[in-house]
Amino acid sequence: MQNQTILLASRPSGTPTADNFRFETSMVPSVAAGQVLLKTLYVSVDPYMRGRMNAGKSYVAPFEVGQPIAGGVVAEVVESQLEQLPVGSVVVGNLPWQQYSLSDGKGLQRIPTGPAPVSYFLGLLGMPGLTAYFGLLDICQPKPGETVVVSGAAGAVGMIVGQLAKIKGARVIGTAGSDEKVAYLKELGFDETINYKTADIPAALAAAAPNGVDCYFDNVGGAITDAVYDLLNKHARIALCGQISSYNDAEVPVGPRPEGKLLKTSAKLQGFIVGDYLPQWPEGVKQLTQWYQEGKLRTEETVTEGFDQIPAAFLGLFKGENTGKALVKVA
Amino acid sequence: MQNQTILLASRPSGTPTADNFRFETSMVPSVAAGQVLLKTLYVSVDPYMRGRMNAGKSYVAPFEVGQPIAGGVVAEVVESQLEQLPVGSVVVGNLPWQQYSLSDGKGLQRIPTGPAPVSYFLGLLGMPGLTAYFGLLDICQPKPGETVVVSGAAGAVGMIVGQLAKIKGARVIGTAGSDEKVAYLKELGFDETINYKTADIPAALAAAAPNGVDCYFDNVGGAITDAVYDLLNKHARIALCGQISSYNDAEVPVGPRPEGKLLKTSAKLQGFIVGDYLPQWPEGVKQLTQWYQEGKLRTEETVTEGFDQIPAAFLGLFKGENTGKALVKVA
Repeated sequence: MQNQTILLASRPSGTPTADNFRFETSMVPSVAAGQVLLKTLYVSVDPYMRGRMNAGKSYVAPFEVGQPIAGGVVAEVVESQLEQLPVGSVVVGNLPWQQYSLSDGKGLQRIPTGPAPVSYFLGLLGMPGLTAYFGLLDICQPKPGETVVVSGAAGAVGMIVGQLAKIKGARVIGTAGSDEKVAYLKELGFDETINYKTADIPAALAAAAPNGVDCYFDNVGGAITDAVYDLLNKHARIALCGQISSYNDAEVPVGPRPEGKLLKTSAKLQGFIVGDYLPQWPEGVKQLTQWYQEGKLRTEETVTEGFDQIPAAFLGLFKGENTGKALVKVA
Repeated sequence: MQNQTILLASRPSGTPTADNFRFETSMVPSVAAGQVLLKTLYVSVDPYMRGRMNAGKSYVAPFEVGQPIAGGVVAEVVESQLEQLPVGSVVVGNLPWQQYSLSDGKGLQRIPTGPAPVSYFLGLLGMPGLTAYFGLLDICQPKPGETVVVSGAAGAVGMIVGQLAKIKGARVIGTAGSDEKVAYLKELGFDETINYKTADIPAALAAAAPNGVDCYFDNVGGAITDAVYDLLNKHARIALCGQISSYNDAEVPVGPRPEGKLLKTSAKLQGFIVGDYLPQWPEGVKQLTQWYQEGKLRTEETVTEGFDQIPAAFLGLFKGENTGKALVKVA
């Protein structure tokens, strides 16, 4: 039986293209003692993976040229020589972009049957949901009546951030890149929305935040962030989660220095990744699951079909093609 | 008896000059019930006062054109109709640049006799000392063996930050603007020093911090700060205290965006002013006084003599003329 794998063919300079990926066909491997064979069901494509395509130190090791790309995957155990993962178990973990893969089970988390579709463990109940949960609730700590701005609000993380902020009683402003996306944010309960591609960003933000900004959850960076910095209230808290506007820049982008604005307001700018909160993940999943089951959290997926479509789905992230979690359904 | 006052004559555009100040002569006022007459002994000149010369919202209200400049002052009660402040008491507070001034006692703090020279309550045991204390110990929280960088290290705040970091067992790197200043930092126990005016800043910092930077106490901003951001360790903490390199800029300065670097390292950048810690000031003064009396903290003052020299002493801050606390001895 044949098995396809997607490798990093070359490092992108600037915006990645299909040429940076290479498909390789091999045979499905056989299972040794202590291993399981996993059949990939869903592959998650995430903006942070762009950073792993570069060489050099970051918070996760870079992908290596000629080696498989790896990321969040939901897979089913189809052969097992591991007692704790019987055939039919569904797991989530960091796994290669591969139709079938071997694993010793380390780092895999078994997905419980029942609470939600398995794909949600790559979104609302997985890394994006936990990223929203810890970034907003630990770093920003919004209080009732405070103003929260979320950039990239229609993305996998942003749409959860906004809903969590509403659960906490805050007033929520979301920015996104199309009229369809901002309409969706309104459905989710966002108080104010801005289509950053058509709006005068500073004017629109100032109008949407007449009492200033207390919390900012930043997925994007650039011009939106500059405009938010000008509206910060005293003791504002900024969770710095992503900078998708500059991930494809070859050089460190230049902009107005934020330090003076943070100084005037005693504001906090805190970079983080969800891995910083590893010991608290189970608590986070439990709370997110509860809110989901109570109907307080909704989610949206943009699902592309077919293993061969994974690179295209990934590249689509940088064109703003997805609303909510971008996934590829493989099997 | 005549009384001189220094007023804001005009708002500076760019670097302030003597023309922005105006001297006015009046008569020493008479004391009403509930008031004291204060004779100014020492006037503190501080970089943050530059911001108050501009119009517009900041963490303290702007000075008004035609009104007295005010700042940290040590004064002696020479007439009193206030029981709690008898003649001969020495106080510290926010008072006008004036030889004699009236006060109702509100906001004044009586300086205890004995622990230290009264001028130290404008430096080591006053706002600059408390700024160093809370910024370093609350925001940076250096651990033994960690690397701490202090910019503006020979200034009133910076020299205390470095000594506090040594008390906490950290390795301390200080930047300052002359060979005399860096020699003084060595005397204070700084492990590494950099004269930023003659060094290749990124290369010198990288050499001084082979294990990266865990804490940064920033008084300066600009090129030094950019170089520190490139050396941050995971979970680095930055206390953003001042940006003297850009206080005289007419426009918000432009530079490499720091967000990507903070994101990669899960670093925290926290703006603050000492006023954020008002309820904890007594605890801070007590601890600083104890360390001073135990010989663990030293301080240095650059004292200019004469009321008429106050503007020149203030302008000297932006030319790096002072080592340690810049003061004017008035009487």
